[in-house]
Amino acid sequence: MKLVSREAKRAIVVIMDGVGDRPIEELGWKTPLQVARKPNLDRIAEIGATGLYDPIAPGIRPGTDTGHLAIFGYDPFRYYPGRGPLEAIGTGINVLPGDVALRANLATVREEGGKLIVIDRRAGRIRGKDAEDLVRYLAEHLREIDGVKVIIAHGTEHRVSIVLRGEGLCPYISDTDPGTAREGSPVKEAVPTKDLACARRTADIVNKLVRASYELLKDHPINKRRVKQGLLPANILITRGAGAVPKDLKPFKEMYGVSAYLVCEEDTVLGIGKLLGIEGEIPPGATGNLDTDISSILRATLNAIDRGYDIVFVHVKGPDIAGHDANWRGKIEIIERIDWLVGEVLKNLSLEEFIVSLTSDHTTPCYVRDHTGDPVPIAIAGIGVRVDDVRRYDEVSCARGCIGRVRGTDFLSIILDLTGKRKKWGA
Amino acid sequence: MKLVSREAKRAIVVIMDGVGDRPIEELGWKTPLQVARKPNLDRIAEIGATGLYDPIAPGIRPGTDTGHLAIFGYDPFRYYPGRGPLEAIGTGINVLPGDVALRANLATVREEGGKLIVIDRRAGRIRGKDAEDLVRYLAEHLREIDGVKVIIAHGTEHRVSIVLRGEGLCPYISDTDPGTAREGSPVKEAVPTKDLACARRTADIVNKLVRASYELLKDHPINKRRVKQGLLPANILITRGAGAVPKDLKPFKEMYGVSAYLVCEEDTVLGIGKLLGIEGEIPPGATGNLDTDISSILRATLNAIDRGYDIVFVHVKGPDIAGHDANWRGKIEIIERIDWLVGEVLKNLSLEEFIVSLTSDHTTPCYVRDHTGDPVPIAIAGIGVRVDDVRRYDEVSCARGCIGRVRGTDFLSIILDLTGKRKKWGA
Repeated sequence: MKLVSREAKRAIVVIMDGVGDRPIEELGWKTPLQVARKPNLDRIAEIGATGLYDPIAPGIRPGTDTGHLAIFGYDPFRYYPGRGPLEAIGTGINVLPGDVALRANLATVREEGGKLIVIDRRAGRIRGKDAEDLVRYLAEHLREIDGVKVIIAHGTEHRVSIVLRGEGLCPYISDTDPGTAREGSPVKEAVPTKDLACARRTADIVNKLVRASYELLKDHPINKRRVKQGLLPANILITRGAGAVPKDLKPFKEMYGVSAYLVCEEDTVLGIGKLLGIEGEIPPGATGNLDTDISSILRATLNAIDRGYDIVFVHVKGPDIAGHDANWRGKIEIIERIDWLVGEVLKNLSLEEFIVSLTSDHTTPCYVRDHTGDPVPIAIAGIGVRVDDVRRYDEVSCARGCIGRVRGTDFLSIILDLTGKRKKWGA
Repeated sequence: MKLVSREAKRAIVVIMDGVGDRPIEELGWKTPLQVARKPNLDRIAEIGATGLYDPIAPGIRPGTDTGHLAIFGYDPFRYYPGRGPLEAIGTGINVLPGDVALRANLATVREEGGKLIVIDRRAGRIRGKDAEDLVRYLAEHLREIDGVKVIIAHGTEHRVSIVLRGEGLCPYISDTDPGTAREGSPVKEAVPTKDLACARRTADIVNKLVRASYELLKDHPINKRRVKQGLLPANILITRGAGAVPKDLKPFKEMYGVSAYLVCEEDTVLGIGKLLGIEGEIPPGATGNLDTDISSILRATLNAIDRGYDIVFVHVKGPDIAGHDANWRGKIEIIERIDWLVGEVLKNLSLEEFIVSLTSDHTTPCYVRDHTGDPVPIAIAGIGVRVDDVRRYDEVSCARGCIGRVRGTDFLSIILDLTGKRKKWGA
């Protein structure tokens, strides 16, 4: 009788973005996963446990952001900060728990009877050096309002991120941007959307910030030059989508006592990782599309394994892109390339030491061309994993697996448990 | 490459009340669903996805009311208003979010040492014109107490519904009815069951109402006449089961952005629909029993489909009645008649346009003669639905299906997702 414990200590989580699908007539009413040749993905199913996974809940359509939050073990209902903070992270701002972040546009207004009327919400889609220089000028001259630190960063074209950091802030305020279809409307006042002192204070600061941006930009030399050139001046920031990172958000390592690394293909996923304190990279040549350099993703993965992280998350975006484009052939091909990647990973590690798992953030059916609320198949292999009789990794086969149907943070929880990282609750 | 989306836009939900069962010795330890000849129900299973559904949670016994709330997408833990509001809706009162409703009895009391002693909780099961006239008299003379609107309506026999509408009310109060086994006890004071100002106010109003009913009824000519005739006078209203419709209950259309119609067989289900703002009808000849006119239900269903509703719910009561009566033969027969109905529905619509689904509000086993917490089988067919290899619609076959086991509001969520009615959460 063996008296030492035999338990895997580490895990690989392969996230195939949007890989699930619905039956497609052109594939004989099968899904791309059911049609693709994928011996390595199927092997995980065959030697391990399978099931279905709803990153949020059955029938609820996840975004890439909410779906990944769930895979990383953070309940989206509790931790989803909204687009403001996620875009701010995308621009490189180190957003902290408690920060309020907003999306903003460089816009064009004219004064009319004491009001600021929006002529163009995007200042003629201003881009390049003009946009960068104006945003840098704002960032340098708007560092603080009423004791609150202001961080302003340029995104792409007219897009700007604003982060407010300080005491007594919260994101329950309305937009100053009058909205997509409202050119010719005045810039709005931000007002509290909840009757809270923090909301009144935040709205007040945002209104001051918008007004100050106008004062700083209206006579700026760049704008004077633009007007002479017949271009729209970018003479104000208008804001929308205030959001906050929950104050009690703990970094992944602190939350779960586990080190993690993220190899991924796009800024949204990298940004979610950053928010959670998960280190990561977009490997060179990883385009997030069907032409991605899958060997570069493999190299980054094997490197991360070598560096000793407890969990390595590997994200491949292609299946989602193919779903949005209704390109089922492309979806089959990228699945087959991911299969190659998984095969190579399996050659490089021992299933006595590693749990290897397959999952996804949501389903992106070719017939819908967007995310849906269908569950995604999951498969988990390695020592300690119960073995069911499912032999294929697809939406229908995995439904008969011994994991059943799980949701939200359950997936990560199972991985943590299989790698001995879960403490007993109770005695 | 196909660039348009192919997605069903509308749905039919067939609700077979209490259709699930447990093994019955007289059926060779099979269930009525396993024994019935039902090619059309089985066809839905065969061409679509199957699974199990717990309207509340595994092992929890739903009522027809809580079960239907869940099927209609309203979490019963959050939205169940209790019997008071549901019975008030049954009497025809238009109960609104925020209203507090109570069940009440016309009862007989006598004064004894300044107390009101209950002689008969049902005033000798008063019925007919006497009951109607006395309740109408109360309704006309008790329209308002302390600024709160009072609505009183007659149910059946001694049963009365009371609705209180106004500011600062809540349902956390005790009963004034001393209870079933307590004839000879005094009428109780309503007291707050939570230490809240709204509960104190509501209890005070109810106590005033009970006292006022006695003042109005004690010398009423009808009661004087009844006493002469040797009948018990109905000289007071005693109350129980205070409940409230949650203030944040949104109508179905507003909650889900979807129009729905309900063809059903009884007031409880119609009342739940009404509470949620779902239009509906009990078709002529729909008795809610085994002798129901199933073709009338079919006609109402096809009419609702023609009128363009996004979701048509069709409720058939018979299987539940047969379960309560331990009538397995009858249960098999009504299942076979529902099978005919589903077959006719399938002839009249396209599965490219419609999702057709089978579900139930709870299991009513013939051997228990009441509702149990067993899951119910579900089956869903139409374009976009994943196809598993289950070929029969019954409690055991569907457990192997590709939906797995879902609960609560999941069922409606899946239907909304399949008909493209779900918005993405996140990006």
